Amino acid sequence: MKTVAIVVLSGGLDSSTCAYMAKKSGLNIIPVHFNYGQKTLKKELKCFNDICDSLNLPHKDRYEIDLPFFTDVGCSSLTDTNMIVPTSGINSSVPSTYVPFRNGIFLSIASAVAIKHSATQIHIGIVQEDGSGYPDCTKEFITKQQECINEGVKPSQKISLITPLLNKTKKDITLIAIKLKVPIDKTWSCYKNELVACGLCDSCRLRLDGFKKAGLNDSIEYITKVLDT
Amino acid sequence: MKTVAIVVLSGGLDSSTCAYMAKKSGLNIIPVHFNYGQKTLKKELKCFNDICDSLNLPHKDRYEIDLPFFTDVGCSSLTDTNMIVPTSGINSSVPSTYVPFRNGIFLSIASAVAIKHSATQIHIGIVQEDGSGYPDCTKEFITKQQECINEGVKPSQKISLITPLLNKTKKDITLIAIKLKVPIDKTWSCYKNELVACGLCDSCRLRLDGFKKAGLNDSIEYITKVLDT
Repeated sequence: MKTVAIVVLSGGLDSSTCAYMAKKSGLNIIPVHFNYGQKTLKKELKCFNDICDSLNLPHKDRYEIDLPFFTDVGCSSLTDTNMIVPTSGINSSVPSTYVPFRNGIFLSIASAVAIKHSATQIHIGIVQEDGSGYPDCTKEFITKQQECINEGVKPSQKISLITPLLNKTKKDITLIAIKLKVPIDKTWSCYKNELVACGLCDSCRLRLDGFKKAGLNDSIEYITKVLDT
Repeated sequence: MKTVAIVVLSGGLDSSTCAYMAKKSGLNIIPVHFNYGQKTLKKELKCFNDICDSLNLPHKDRYEIDLPFFTDVGCSSLTDTNMIVPTSGINSSVPSTYVPFRNGIFLSIASAVAIKHSATQIHIGIVQEDGSGYPDCTKEFITKQQECINEGVKPSQKISLITPLLNKTKKDITLIAIKLKVPIDKTWSCYKNELVACGLCDSCRLRLDGFKKAGLNDSIEYITKVLDT
């Protein structure tokens, strides 16, 4: 019997690549998507389903989990309508796009789904080395989260957190995505817009930089392309 | 300025006592309640609000967080309509009422609320010594969860998990509740019923045993009172 793996899948380039890597490894994938009041919620949900379609994952196994409380909590320019997604370039501090303990919440919920499906792995496409400076996107956080999960579930249900992109650069990820034939045009990374990517938010900048360094063209449309991050 | 503390408040005897203890300590309480598809959801929500009223906590500070995905996940007799809440007595293994990684999910979400309110503490009324044998109600789990939270939030936002009842017996908790004038008749512990407590589920048995050992009468109504757990 195939190993069952939960994949946290936003529909962005990273998580879609992560899902393709899991599929290529021969795992039986259960994809989990979160609607957490993010400004690009509708677009991400469409991309999630498009990527699931392209991976031939049945609708009955897809989890679209609504977490409307994130809007009440706010405190992030991704979810709070009173805050503007920054477009002036990446700096070294934790950016305003950090969503309070998002990955902790996502991975905790993914653990409950893992228990249901007797999944022994949860895959998440977080990037540390070339990422956005989020505290919940580090090796140290993942180690603590895995220990926490395995302390809080039944002793018979051990779960491993798998982060295949953790130490990859955006260039590496772009090259892996192309190699695995991830449908790039069905993924979405922009934090700000749902129709045409802004090209200026941190996520667009990191994605564009990855394509540039890989010597490739991104097939989605951008309002502006700032190639120097 | 008063220290702000999040209190996870189901409206049961334990969490209500925990909230009263926090109030007595002079903390500024933000109560967080979860609707997770439990069979006694409506009753618990009413008790949550009754306890908040009795503590004079303003409505604007109360969090009623809906987590409907727990119903899809199921795997627990508290949330799965295909499973029956056991009434034959407490045994030593993890009971069917264990909800997959519930406290991990609750505490992760409570952390996000803590960040919003600059709260440095999260109080949760879990009981290990005289509890139900849940893996997410132990000192070891809480230690791991706290480490995980503090690794995944901004370095400036350290959060302590406070578990004043962890090593208390149900007798101790009953005596504290009486001493602090917790309105016992406004709390609910039964896993099964919303109108009259069954008296037979693990939660009713533990509560009844606590009152018996404290030499007191529980003021809520029971269908059956089994006093030997």
